[in-house]
Amino acid sequence: MEPKKILLHDDELPKQWYNISADIKMNPPLGPDGKPISPESLAPVFPMNLIEQEVSTQRWIDIPDEVKKVLLMWRPTPLVRAYQLEKALGTPAKIFFKNESVSPPGSHKPNTAVPQAYYNKIFGIKRIVTETGAGQWGSALSFACSQFGLECKIFMVRVSFDQKPYRKSLMNVWGGKCIASPSNETKTGRDVLEKDPNCPGSLGIAISEAIEATISDTTGSTRYSLGSVLNHVLLHQTIIGLEAKKQLEIIGEYPDVIIGCAGGGSNFAGLAFPFVLDKVNGKQIAIYPVEPQGCPTLTKGPFVYDHGDTAGYTPLLPMFSLGHTFMPPPFHAGGLRYHGMAPTVSQLADEGLIHPLAVSQLDAYEAGILAARTEGIIPAPETNHAIAAVIAEAQKAKEEGKAKTILFNWSGHGFLDLAAYDKYFSKELKNVLMSESELLAATKICESYPKPLRLKNR
Amino acid sequence: MEPKKILLHDDELPKQWYNISADIKMNPPLGPDGKPISPESLAPVFPMNLIEQEVSTQRWIDIPDEVKKVLLMWRPTPLVRAYQLEKALGTPAKIFFKNESVSPPGSHKPNTAVPQAYYNKIFGIKRIVTETGAGQWGSALSFACSQFGLECKIFMVRVSFDQKPYRKSLMNVWGGKCIASPSNETKTGRDVLEKDPNCPGSLGIAISEAIEATISDTTGSTRYSLGSVLNHVLLHQTIIGLEAKKQLEIIGEYPDVIIGCAGGGSNFAGLAFPFVLDKVNGKQIAIYPVEPQGCPTLTKGPFVYDHGDTAGYTPLLPMFSLGHTFMPPPFHAGGLRYHGMAPTVSQLADEGLIHPLAVSQLDAYEAGILAARTEGIIPAPETNHAIAAVIAEAQKAKEEGKAKTILFNWSGHGFLDLAAYDKYFSKELKNVLMSESELLAATKICESYPKPLRLKNR
Repeated sequence: MEPKKILLHDDELPKQWYNISADIKMNPPLGPDGKPISPESLAPVFPMNLIEQEVSTQRWIDIPDEVKKVLLMWRPTPLVRAYQLEKALGTPAKIFFKNESVSPPGSHKPNTAVPQAYYNKIFGIKRIVTETGAGQWGSALSFACSQFGLECKIFMVRVSFDQKPYRKSLMNVWGGKCIASPSNETKTGRDVLEKDPNCPGSLGIAISEAIEATISDTTGSTRYSLGSVLNHVLLHQTIIGLEAKKQLEIIGEYPDVIIGCAGGGSNFAGLAFPFVLDKVNGKQIAIYPVEPQGCPTLTKGPFVYDHGDTAGYTPLLPMFSLGHTFMPPPFHAGGLRYHGMAPTVSQLADEGLIHPLAVSQLDAYEAGILAARTEGIIPAPETNHAIAAVIAEAQKAKEEGKAKTILFNWSGHGFLDLAAYDKYFSKELKNVLMSESELLAATKICESYPKPLRLKNR
Repeated sequence: MEPKKILLHDDELPKQWYNISADIKMNPPLGPDGKPISPESLAPVFPMNLIEQEVSTQRWIDIPDEVKKVLLMWRPTPLVRAYQLEKALGTPAKIFFKNESVSPPGSHKPNTAVPQAYYNKIFGIKRIVTETGAGQWGSALSFACSQFGLECKIFMVRVSFDQKPYRKSLMNVWGGKCIASPSNETKTGRDVLEKDPNCPGSLGIAISEAIEATISDTTGSTRYSLGSVLNHVLLHQTIIGLEAKKQLEIIGEYPDVIIGCAGGGSNFAGLAFPFVLDKVNGKQIAIYPVEPQGCPTLTKGPFVYDHGDTAGYTPLLPMFSLGHTFMPPPFHAGGLRYHGMAPTVSQLADEGLIHPLAVSQLDAYEAGILAARTEGIIPAPETNHAIAAVIAEAQKAKEEGKAKTILFNWSGHGFLDLAAYDKYFSKELKNVLMSESELLAATKICESYPKPLRLKNR
């Protein structure tokens, strides 16, 4: 019997991250004046060592020893063959997944939270402020800050804050401080609450609040941290795909299909980017980022220059977007409720190197429950979207009689999302679609935004 | 640097369980007539293949391939060096733990749930009924039943059912059906509710309800399953200690101290039993089962013949007990709220081969939070008791200047116990002690019970 899990020992942990910016041409971020921004202009928000990574075009970047020590608490993560799921589907496809749910906070997020906390620490920073959607990122950063003795403050999107009270408890156990966004602590939050006191919040608003809280600390000892979207974040996540590549090599496999759910793009990119280079060089791989139909950025939004946050504090980034003022409906996968998409992921989608899919909320939960009853692990609601696409692909392989090799990212577990599963079973959970008129309105807003150049990397 | 984790690959999974009954003399279970029971008398409750394991004195018992396939979903579990905790304590001790929290249900419980579901399945059983305290066992059995296509029904102790609503959701995702105990579904439950409609329940009552529900199904297709206490359950858990032994051998270590929390005794025994044999043969090891001060079975109870359940359906078992009618107070470690203790663990304690400790609820949570902030994993409340003892031992090593090697069992995670951590932070959590008068009353009741023979195995 082939193994159920392919493990790597501590000394097989990748020693470097893969930086896709070395291999693809990108449109630069723009400042308010419409010109490319200087790295220095980001200095009030991020420590300079992380800004250097953000703009770096060096292909391989060393992982510091102090970061490796913490990553080794759960990495390398297992590569698992989903035999039980394959059997339930009766598919000839081989399905593999990286199990990122085994990290202390239960998702892929600490892969970047740990290096971000480290780089802030050695830059002399005492306090990190951030936002969180579903709570995965806030938990991860609280955990990472506890490892490096940093303070951590988290603005959590209110709808998730209310749906998942124990996410806050989790952050507390690691010493983090979590408050609901929109809050009264920032001008952004107060402005939003004035217009709509019951606003469910959004990642865009929470990002604005966190940035505002950061730059308003004039002592210089606070910095902001982002859990997705930016180049350095996706860079840190590539450890997932680098490990997966090694693990597949051990058993002589290479994926025909790669799948990850995509909100801001980091868990998808973490798995996919080390394989994208092979594709640029001519390898045949189908690569699918999967988003929710309730927030169909890549599948329905235009490719424009837009802000990463609602208030417009961030530079203009070249990305697929539904507009930075777009308010995603309150569906149960908070990590996918984001108006934009990582610029690198957007660039690959724009030129057809990856092929975005959108799945419905109910299809996602149905898929997740089948996965739980076969592979055991309770998936995070975000992961359910990837699993729905995996199942569709495995069923297609069955119809076509093809023994495809499918690789996907089990980005996190759902132990803190069980209320949503309850709603699924009690039929309270509905599909959440973006209406044609909402989409039209969002697209219309984006029409006025600057357009990125059409670049070709293949 | 020595590794953070010592991993074993799939092909290094132990092929056999260790049966301590081969190596120690035990008092037999007694029937209502005061005579040793026959295996056949257990047939309405358990399938015969498990009864054979229960009474077996064969030292090594093969793990069936179908069981191994499921265990490989998460086993072998990592052996982790707690460098971060050691550093925080400034101890010269080396601290290692088995991370049993990585299983799909998040604890050591599926180690026996999976083989029990398997043996029931091949015996032709369609439905398993059980009880659960904290919910770890019920979750594990639901998961195991989903792997073998069996129905699963769980009576959950009401205090935990109310404290942890998401445990029920978790069982639902795997297809199990969970109801609060005492319930109206059994005579036992109805009798208890008549006397006290607000009864918080106990493991003893829930066991009675589950056995009654089992034997009242006259079709013969239902059996009962127990998550701790019995020989075959502890047998299945020895895979923990067998893996740990292999893993320590790889790095040339052997433990001076072994620690596990003990409610019914199974996670403690699973880690410790493979080392007990070495101790019987003269090796110097200190072995500590750790219980809560609110239910101090081993440290304060007498060694008597008592029933495993409240209604007296089970045979009389030779064990330390606070009496089968004892109602443990509702502290936040439901898995440790049991009036008795596994007979094999009791036997070892009676003759001084292991040394029971009791810790307070607040000490346990304080220890657990330090562990979470250093080693990352949020511990289950039960595990916190073991960690409190580990910290005390590591501090003793510091005072004595001794570089002891401590091995403990991180029996589960606390993602579904965050409400209790909230209470700790808000100072609502108190120490729960058994008063002198309660203890006197419990001891007095036990005085009338038959006494086991004093046996010596060393």
